Amino acid sequence: MHSDSDWLAAAARLGLRGRPLSRPNPSVGAIIVKHGKVVGRGHTRAGGRPHAEKIALDDAGEDAKGAALYTSLEPCNHESERGPACSDIIARSGISRMVFAVTDPDPRTAGSGAEKLRRAGIKVSQIDCAQASASLAGYLTQKARGRPHVTLKLATSLDGFVALPSGESQWITGDQARAHVHSRRAQADAILVGGGTWRADKPRLDVRLAGLEERSPQRILLTRGIAPDGVKIINRPEQIAALDDVLYLYVEGGGQTAASFLSADLVDRIELYRAPIIMGAGQSSVADIGLEKLSAAHGRWQLAEQRMLGSDTYEVYERVQPNQGTTTGNGE
Amino acid sequence: MHSDSDWLAAAARLGLRGRPLSRPNPSVGAIIVKHGKVVGRGHTRAGGRPHAEKIALDDAGEDAKGAALYTSLEPCNHESERGPACSDIIARSGISRMVFAVTDPDPRTAGSGAEKLRRAGIKVSQIDCAQASASLAGYLTQKARGRPHVTLKLATSLDGFVALPSGESQWITGDQARAHVHSRRAQADAILVGGGTWRADKPRLDVRLAGLEERSPQRILLTRGIAPDGVKIINRPEQIAALDDVLYLYVEGGGQTAASFLSADLVDRIELYRAPIIMGAGQSSVADIGLEKLSAAHGRWQLAEQRMLGSDTYEVYERVQPNQGTTTGNGE
Repeated sequence: MHSDSDWLAAAARLGLRGRPLSRPNPSVGAIIVKHGKVVGRGHTRAGGRPHAEKIALDDAGEDAKGAALYTSLEPCNHESERGPACSDIIARSGISRMVFAVTDPDPRTAGSGAEKLRRAGIKVSQIDCAQASASLAGYLTQKARGRPHVTLKLATSLDGFVALPSGESQWITGDQARAHVHSRRAQADAILVGGGTWRADKPRLDVRLAGLEERSPQRILLTRGIAPDGVKIINRPEQIAALDDVLYLYVEGGGQTAASFLSADLVDRIELYRAPIIMGAGQSSVADIGLEKLSAAHGRWQLAEQRMLGSDTYEVYERVQPNQGTTTGNGE
Repeated sequence: MHSDSDWLAAAARLGLRGRPLSRPNPSVGAIIVKHGKVVGRGHTRAGGRPHAEKIALDDAGEDAKGAALYTSLEPCNHESERGPACSDIIARSGISRMVFAVTDPDPRTAGSGAEKLRRAGIKVSQIDCAQASASLAGYLTQKARGRPHVTLKLATSLDGFVALPSGESQWITGDQARAHVHSRRAQADAILVGGGTWRADKPRLDVRLAGLEERSPQRILLTRGIAPDGVKIINRPEQIAALDDVLYLYVEGGGQTAASFLSADLVDRIELYRAPIIMGAGQSSVADIGLEKLSAAHGRWQLAEQRMLGSDTYEVYERVQPNQGTTTGNGE
């Protein structure tokens, strides 16, 4: 027997499959459940349409009648030239109950999608779900902060170095960790490195995983120099707010770039790969951020995930948000 | 139903209770099992006597007859002025089966303890047990390498710093991690820091845990200077071989001292505490060790333990030993 929270988490996981190709739309996941069984599933398709709910309803067909719909994001309540609002489709689908996790911050919906369904006689519930918020992080960050969600990747020795004093950095982490980095690139809309890293490493910044080569994201340089072919540049981290079609930005280094983003408080998530080696000297993963007191460093990051990739460790640290988990939802 | 390996691991855990007060003797754990139940338990007492087997047999009394004895280390086969050999005590105890993990490298025993028991009609088995080897690490390192077992403690930010450029280092890790350090000090025979750390931090290097204050170990400085009151000094890491009554040495820093021990290949275990903070600049946990190629850094350390202490992570890295787990035992 699964709880509503279990089904919402499953919908959120399904939503992840639409990332990042759903851009500029959020990748929503929707599941239709009847008598304890999944009868329909959907996630937002490339380019943002069809929406997850529409696909799940089409998948369920007649089984949607009397069923429950679980969706990571409140159904949209605005018609577009690309199709009717999900709230209208759901209202006439025969769905008897709708559970969603995150109230859509888009002012054209913002609770009105849930309200329309309630008025249509559907039992509507909003339930907080950390996985759902996480799966929509790019969209929610864009709406709340007016910029992409930023992940900072670091790959270090146990003592925090990313390269020897000579510059040698191939390889600190092992095959599995490096393949994982490529899978993470494939989840991003854009990858950013600093000008120094670009000149020193000449990184390809593409996705070299079988079947995912097409997923290689936009390449962006943080530099005061000029843009190489096929690469966009920004001069300051704050300019990420102006990037088109970027919900998820993956920052790969080097230390100065990491420091610039951290100093500007523009990092939402740190993904830290560590090899079980001691280097003793070399280039630091993060350059000086002007920290004057240790107390100012505490309380900003919390460990969200930890596992092994071969002999390396992989850890995810998420920005601490005082009211994390509380959405703007008023759907219940 | 427990296996022989389970009982050996339990004996090894019991042995840990005798650390470090059993010095200069290893802290052995012994359990007597009859019809699937523990009927006797013992670990080496302070100063090295009585031995674990003797205590376990006394604990079992008449129940020892027909029972199995599990012990982390092969029973000793040499009489001393402090008492008879355990092999003789066991031979006349009525024990019908004896299982041990580590063959005693002491040439006065070295397999002869097991052989004597076998000849006495007791069924004897040697079974490798990682927990048993680990519980005897100080003794085994002393016998194999002629020096104490060395643990290097590091307490860093996520980016590998142990202090701000200003020297501020209180506090990087939290209460739980700091209390854990004190519990680890209580398991050591001696704590060592470098002269720079001594002068900068004036560390007390004692055990500040209720009930364990008496466990505060010897204090040792790595310095070319003169010895402060109550503190022993060594000039080079190699001189730890000459330390009396030290099976377990706990090296607490700073970076130069860590580098000296690592460069001399005198570290067996790294205990790494990490706070979820980014510092960006400061003093490194390990100073330059002269590493010229990344390839030379790999294959030396393996993660043996990982857990949370409050919001900090605690990890243990053990020296990779090609033939780890194979003892010199020929007891089967």
